Amino acid sequence: MPAPSESEVRGYLKTLSNWGRWGSEDELGTINLITPAKRQAAARLVSHGQSVTCARPITTDITPDTTVQPMRFMVDSGEGRDTVSPERALQRRGAAEFIGMVFHGYTITHVDAPSHYFWEGQLYNGRSCNTVTSREGATVNSVEVLRDGVVSRGVLLDVARTRGVRWLEGGSGVMPEDLEAAERAAGVRVEPGDILLVRTGYYGRRLAEGPVHPLQAMIGTDTHNDVHPAPYPSMGNSFHVVCLVAMGLWLIDNANLEDLAQTAARLSRWEFLMTVAPLRLKNVTGSPVNPIAVF
Amino acid sequence: MPAPSESEVRGYLKTLSNWGRWGSEDELGTINLITPAKRQAAARLVSHGQSVTCARPITTDITPDTTVQPMRFMVDSGEGRDTVSPERALQRRGAAEFIGMVFHGYTITHVDAPSHYFWEGQLYNGRSCNTVTSREGATVNSVEVLRDGVVSRGVLLDVARTRGVRWLEGGSGVMPEDLEAAERAAGVRVEPGDILLVRTGYYGRRLAEGPVHPLQAMIGTDTHNDVHPAPYPSMGNSFHVVCLVAMGLWLIDNANLEDLAQTAARLSRWEFLMTVAPLRLKNVTGSPVNPIAVF
Amino acid sequence: MPAPSESEVRGYLKTLSNWGRWGSEDELGTINLITPAKRQAAARLVSHGQSVTCARPITTDITPDTTVQPMRFMVDSGEGRDTVSPERALQRRGAAEFIGMVFHGYTITHVDAPSHYFWEGQLYNGRSCNTVTSREGATVNSVEVLRDGVVSRGVLLDVARTRGVRWLEGGSGVMPEDLEAAERAAGVRVEPGDILLVRTGYYGRRLAEGPVHPLQAMIGTDTHNDVHPAPYPSMGNSFHVVCLVAMGLWLIDNANLEDLAQTAARLSRWEFLMTVAPLRLKNVTGSPVNPIAVF
Amino acid sequence: MPAPSESEVRGYLKTLSNWGRWGSEDELGTINLITPAKRQAAARLVSHGQSVTCARPITTDITPDTTVQPMRFMVDSGEGRDTVSPERALQRRGAAEFIGMVFHGYTITHVDAPSHYFWEGQLYNGRSCNTVTSREGATVNSVEVLRDGVVSRGVLLDVARTRGVRWLEGGSGVMPEDLEAAERAAGVRVEPGDILLVRTGYYGRRLAEGPVHPLQAMIGTDTHNDVHPAPYPSMGNSFHVVCLVAMGLWLIDNANLEDLAQTAARLSRWEFLMTVAPLRLKNVTGSPVNPIAVF
Repeated sequence: MPAPSESEVRGYLKTLSNWGRWGSEDELGTINLITPAKRQAAARLVSHGQSVTCARPITTDITPDTTVQPMRFMVDSGEGRDTVSPERALQRRGAAEFIGMVFHGYTITHVDAPSHYFWEGQLYNGRSCNTVTSREGATVNSVEVLRDGVVSRGVLLDVARTRGVRWLEGGSGVMPEDLEAAERAAGVRVEPGDILLVRTGYYGRRLAEGPVHPLQAMIGTDTHNDVHPAPYPSMGNSFHVVCLVAMGLWLIDNANLEDLAQTAARLSRWEFLMTVAPLRLKNVTGSPVNPIAVF
Repeated sequence: MPAPSESEVRGYLKTLSNWGRWGSEDELGTINLITPAKRQAAARLVSHGQSVTCARPITTDITPDTTVQPMRFMVDSGEGRDTVSPERALQRRGAAEFIGMVFHGYTITHVDAPSHYFWEGQLYNGRSCNTVTSREGATVNSVEVLRDGVVSRGVLLDVARTRGVRWLEGGSGVMPEDLEAAERAAGVRVEPGDILLVRTGYYGRRLAEGPVHPLQAMIGTDTHNDVHPAPYPSMGNSFHVVCLVAMGLWLIDNANLEDLAQTAARLSRWEFLMTVAPLRLKNVTGSPVNPIAVF
Repeated sequence: MPAPSESEVRGYLKTLSNWGRWGSEDELGTINLITPAKRQAAARLVSHGQSVTCARPITTDITPDTTVQPMRFMVDSGEGRDTVSPERALQRRGAAEFIGMVFHGYTITHVDAPSHYFWEGQLYNGRSCNTVTSREGATVNSVEVLRDGVVSRGVLLDVARTRGVRWLEGGSGVMPEDLEAAERAAGVRVEPGDILLVRTGYYGRRLAEGPVHPLQAMIGTDTHNDVHPAPYPSMGNSFHVVCLVAMGLWLIDNANLEDLAQTAARLSRWEFLMTVAPLRLKNVTGSPVNPIAVF
Repeated sequence: MPAPSESEVRGYLKTLSNWGRWGSEDELGTINLITPAKRQAAARLVSHGQSVTCARPITTDITPDTTVQPMRFMVDSGEGRDTVSPERALQRRGAAEFIGMVFHGYTITHVDAPSHYFWEGQLYNGRSCNTVTSREGATVNSVEVLRDGVVSRGVLLDVARTRGVRWLEGGSGVMPEDLEAAERAAGVRVEPGDILLVRTGYYGRRLAEGPVHPLQAMIGTDTHNDVHPAPYPSMGNSFHVVCLVAMGLWLIDNANLEDLAQTAARLSRWEFLMTVAPLRLKNVTGSPVNPIAVF
């Protein structure tokens, strides 16, 4: 099946739109699909008691795909505290650091809130792009609306594994038939309210071969991110537009699905309890996260 | 029961020590007590499918208990993107921000790794304080060792509720008989591997009356933090020393247990599935977190 | 003489405008008035060989007039480097820090570039406010255009001294007759191309009594800043508008004129060689500075 | 003349030492050599009235010689302020930014204070390296002691020009006979209290060919920095040690002497009035600067 044409993709902005579906004030978007019953069922999936990270480490290294270097500066350290006077040792007993980052980009596992993206001057649910200001930040659709976390069934569709490759090559998108094949291979069906993790093997490739810039295409996410180079130049990152703006579908960018895929294969389980817990950052367009799967 | 004397507390450094218990290389400390069976049992506690945050919002406000102001600076915003040229709109479709913080302190919900604290020149398990350097950071006992998250049974002991007060007054510590009374009131027993949350009502008071500096005493945590003013001046924050250094017992500082306490009371359930997912920060002494309870 | 009315001040936007005076591409504004001959004459004023700062210290303290806390985080320190191994001592020989600040505000001595302010959608010389973007910064009228520094005659008009008070009270502006009286007292006349420093004693008061928020009114600057509370509510900081937008007149905010005033009084000299050397910050709306007067 | 041997260089630590020369409390080091008479004479050198920067631009680019990426984040911008409501336009009239940097390193023109470097556990004048702490910063020998700026005669010794090359090749140090040849070519003699600028052409090469990492060797400074690769491995950056620790001789790292050299050649003048005005950063080991030469 060929990739959809640009006019088909532009059509998705209308056919997949969730604007108004959960009311004109809604900021949760597709998170509305996660019901208490869904969370209960997700918890019942836990049978091995094993937890696995879906996040990459955050380091201060500069790599070819760094846009803004993460920072870690100590505001106090332990050096020499074994040879100082007892008074000084009592006064300075702890180590602490400043951490800082632009989590959006290509290296840090993070959640995208709908306030992260706009199209023709609008955010999800028809709000104006002027609600995200340079001074006040994301005055609507901030990640803060996910304060109680996202707890639901996680489903891993391991497209690389299903295709029998270590990783997908750049420029090749994940097509619906890939997802269906991965579903069949895993014996699961994606259902409303699931947290979908699609593995292309990109991060495994990055670990093996180092970063390639730009790389936004091949990243496993809760759905997917975007093909690079962008196949629809006049739309930019078209899946971000469709998901974040039209659907109110939150994204996890830059996940690490390598550990998860190994555990899933070992246990022959591609569904699990998933918890994503964004920081409660006021007026912010997303959050760095460490999504946890429990088998 | 009176508070223990300083010499009793100093005795805890020996009697409660876990140094060597899980081997000389261990960095996990009491996290070792969480077994797969423990996680399975925790997941079976989910019966209502409701999730609740235990984190406070993170804002850039300066309050009397601010030590280092958190930062949020936009690296791109949406302002005026509805009136720019189509080319510019395509080029700048997304909003993003830099976030930065010193999460240690009195306002941000965070995990303390054992590398955060030392006593007489040593960290947990006998490591030298010189392993936490001003350049490289926490080269041992970094929060990174919790990469797979902490998933276990959470137990809320609501001491304020058990005492019949809105919040405990400053200067009064939580004593063992308080915990036992709260256990009896809740009909639960704290067991090995639990994530213990002790509510003093401090954060409720802060919401109602504003911050009081210093305030480290009254904070509900997975155990507790420290009484203020420090009752053992020559030990400083003695519970941090006992927990982090001697026991390898990780702490959650500055939790928000108000929402949790209300949900627990409404459902008459003081045990639940708990997920704490620190960011995978390399060589860092803790992490901001949003701990999630699921009932 | 009473303060001018709002309509008079709005009139200044036209009568004092320098738009087009130095060409439609000009970014220097009134700096154009400083000629080589002016700099030569300024250098000839040096007769005592004494240099004096006009800057305040920059600290990380939070004060009532802090808007964004300045940061200083060590990226390496010297602690314990006297007891480490020779290899480690060789590897880590130096101390260094990260410094960060929002220099605009009420506490840091800094230069305002014309890109710092706009009025009815325009900057100095008729440029659009959209040239100062949240992503790229000040794409025009950046402080970088002062790369070769500002070297000219400095003139101190000590209004507080002339009025015989330690400092002017809040709410009272500096009027033309104040400047004329100070000129007469000092025996100098302000001339084109001078760097004018007007002392109200505000900083001396802040040193003596602590900061008062807000305090933008009483600050000695190269002209002056603004009266607080703003006498023309619909204009905001009207002098910033008149100076930066209409005149292209660069400002020094939050100068420290206490040391300068003492030296000037002691030497009975109110003119001197002045050097202001902004950092060469690309696309930035000003710079922290340490202006140096030489008598 | 061959490069000095390591034992000769180690000997300089004694023979060139200024410890105690200006008293045991001294923090100024060789700045003590700049007298009022020296400043007066420097001012008399101004005959053309032309000012020239000796700083490089500061950008947020990541280059091969970046160690920590400089930051510029807008805290307010002008975008869309021409189409907002009048109320909003009045409320948000100004643009501002956060700037942050680790000025030490290979790209930003900056001053090194003696607190930046230590040798065998000691700073200039015999102070302990433990006076530069991870929490409090440089509690002695902070750049703050230069609060009144450094104003003196600047002398440019253009070694590249004297040797007849565009720039010196890496690995080749500047030897005393180079300086003497440059003195003869320029018709000047370096004297006590001068600010010496030695041009190797490194920055011109960086502009022409891009950065080469590491590059610390070839940088024109007020003396010079260090040869790379370090010829005395057991001493590290030996000139930093000799200058900062033994001599209390402040350094300007990463100067831009290209504009200066062109002006000097055009005017046939290699001496000029020099003003270096470090920011008044409390407890900091140096400062970014824009040194200004006036001919």
